[in-house]
Amino acid sequence: MTVTAPQGFEAAGVAVGLKPTGKPDVAVVVNRGPRKVGAAVFTTNRAKANPIIWSQQVIADRVVEAIVLNSGGANCFTGPFGFQTSHLTAEKAAALLEVSAGDVLVCSTGLIGTGDEVFRGKVLEGVEQGVAALSADGGPSAAEAIMTTDTVAKTGAVSRDGWTIGGMAKGAGMLAPGLATMLVVLTTDADLDAAEADAALRRATGVTFDRLDSDGCMSTNDQVTLLANGASGIRPDMDDFVDALTGLCHELASKLQQDAEGASHDITIEVTGAATEAEAVEVGRSVARNNLFKAAIFGNDPNWGRVLAAIGTTAAQFDPYDVDVSMNGVRVCTAGGPDRPREEVDLTPRATHLEIDLKTGEATATILTNDLTHDYVHENSTYAS
Amino acid sequence: MTVTAPQGFEAAGVAVGLKPTGKPDVAVVVNRGPRKVGAAVFTTNRAKANPIIWSQQVIADRVVEAIVLNSGGANCFTGPFGFQTSHLTAEKAAALLEVSAGDVLVCSTGLIGTGDEVFRGKVLEGVEQGVAALSADGGPSAAEAIMTTDTVAKTGAVSRDGWTIGGMAKGAGMLAPGLATMLVVLTTDADLDAAEADAALRRATGVTFDRLDSDGCMSTNDQVTLLANGASGIRPDMDDFVDALTGLCHELASKLQQDAEGASHDITIEVTGAATEAEAVEVGRSVARNNLFKAAIFGNDPNWGRVLAAIGTTAAQFDPYDVDVSMNGVRVCTAGGPDRPREEVDLTPRATHLEIDLKTGEATATILTNDLTHDYVHENSTYAS
Repeated sequence: MTVTAPQGFEAAGVAVGLKPTGKPDVAVVVNRGPRKVGAAVFTTNRAKANPIIWSQQVIADRVVEAIVLNSGGANCFTGPFGFQTSHLTAEKAAALLEVSAGDVLVCSTGLIGTGDEVFRGKVLEGVEQGVAALSADGGPSAAEAIMTTDTVAKTGAVSRDGWTIGGMAKGAGMLAPGLATMLVVLTTDADLDAAEADAALRRATGVTFDRLDSDGCMSTNDQVTLLANGASGIRPDMDDFVDALTGLCHELASKLQQDAEGASHDITIEVTGAATEAEAVEVGRSVARNNLFKAAIFGNDPNWGRVLAAIGTTAAQFDPYDVDVSMNGVRVCTAGGPDRPREEVDLTPRATHLEIDLKTGEATATILTNDLTHDYVHENSTYAS
Repeated sequence: MTVTAPQGFEAAGVAVGLKPTGKPDVAVVVNRGPRKVGAAVFTTNRAKANPIIWSQQVIADRVVEAIVLNSGGANCFTGPFGFQTSHLTAEKAAALLEVSAGDVLVCSTGLIGTGDEVFRGKVLEGVEQGVAALSADGGPSAAEAIMTTDTVAKTGAVSRDGWTIGGMAKGAGMLAPGLATMLVVLTTDADLDAAEADAALRRATGVTFDRLDSDGCMSTNDQVTLLANGASGIRPDMDDFVDALTGLCHELASKLQQDAEGASHDITIEVTGAATEAEAVEVGRSVARNNLFKAAIFGNDPNWGRVLAAIGTTAAQFDPYDVDVSMNGVRVCTAGGPDRPREEVDLTPRATHLEIDLKTGEATATILTNDLTHDYVHENSTYAS
């Protein structure tokens, strides 16, 4: 149920000491063809890690043979030496696989500023071991090797009409728009051309990973990649394919949300009645990023005033005195005033549902976020040490 | 050393039970003239509390006789009844002071959604008691009455060339641009006309309160007011007056920062080398709002990668690989790469100094913020209960 679920993909995860725990830390995913179609979306952070700078060049021709991913170091802000490391990583994999280095993507995750000679040596060792260990059932070990603060490996797969899509994801903090601190690899044996793969990936990520905003912080290293090899011999109906891909991305995004660092609530913010979808997203994000709201949810406090205060900071069309807010099904605010008493709202379940009706138009959007907890502060105050 | 420091101002703080603790909760400040000049800046949140909606009407003619302020309830999202309460508050004070209700500002602070009949009754009682208690040395009790989660009353005064400016402030959370959860009253016996008072207030707040961004959350109730009565008979040099007013505002803003809810570090973010002042502010704010950076500072962790990742989310002109970052005087990042080892940075003092040189232009800006701590989460997860 992961990247090796579709036909024609092999993967491996190996341990080379990048993680002090000795757990797997380098993953390799290879597309055995027949087609070698690749599509990718990257962090929109202007401060990009070296593997992102490298991979953006690789993806230009939309041909991808393989991906090398490492945890235990982000190789970001590590200068020309760090860029050379990403380049050498691709070259080493290419030599072993007898393909072009220009068709090998590289992803890294871990502490920013980590990318010295020791790091390089271990990553290159990981490529060697990883390529040697490639197998058609190596997906689970690859998913394990990309974990950082994740507590569980995140994988999934979906099959329809003779073709399959598989995927793996990592990410537990710094989950925000323009992707999160997430690395995601999606594979399919459906027969897609490059333009179809690119369009499908953008449609699916636009309403899933791009709407996960755990802590408002945007990573330097995010990458979501789709590899398509046509091994099933079947050209899917594109709407059907996008639907399946979106479903899988939603499943993986939900798994990221559920494993967000220190979180005790998974909050689904459903905005309805917006003038445009973009405004619905803006409103949902403003609430998702409001520390006071997030801390209140942690305290099981249905503080709807903080929701309205957050909406008030947006440029969306709405009348503050005609907004309805419900929490876990209880209408706590009607037309900008108090409705049901806060005592009726049960916020003890982890799954939390916030509904905001702007009563302006017909557009909707759903944003996924988490609460702000002691454990979030603790994990992120000690990450580097 | 507060709002009653200048000649011709009287104030009082009284306790009417809005605070469960029984501490003072209603303040009245009156300008005895001869001039009754008023200027004010308000929250830019589109979700505005009833006292803000009322006060924006009052300030239109730039004549202000008095201000009534209450803690223990924000009177926000309390509907037409809540607006009537603000109106009745002004009318009651006006009747007792024999002035026009249209020249009485109202400020409220506390929990959003609080503003029922009990609240109204207590506020009106507070007006009655407050007006009766007015005196030329009532400033300290007024400053005490506007405190919410503040641990200390915040006051200050400055005198030059025969005129004086006094001030009081409250605010300890939700400190963000377009003001904070702050109520500030500034008084002066300098002889200013309405246009001069307005211009001076905007220049001073633009580089002080507007650059305090404790937790990125914007209040519904913020108001900063300057009252000028010319009682000193002296028309000040305006540059000199703005300089003094800015100094006092900076002092009060620093006191707000130092008392921010749960904070363990006061972080001064100094951005230099920006193309424009607006871009310097944007960069400073993006760092001030980055939870990962803020949690790292709480953990005494000089995680400069998070600084660069935050800058990368802005539209400011800069090259990520030509940015320098120093923490408490130690250059941890030069030209987007590691410089001095993180062990050299001592983050144990509460005062924390972050310098970011964008190396693009000559513009600078300084943003004040705080770290993200367990105590912040605790205070804000239990505020309503």
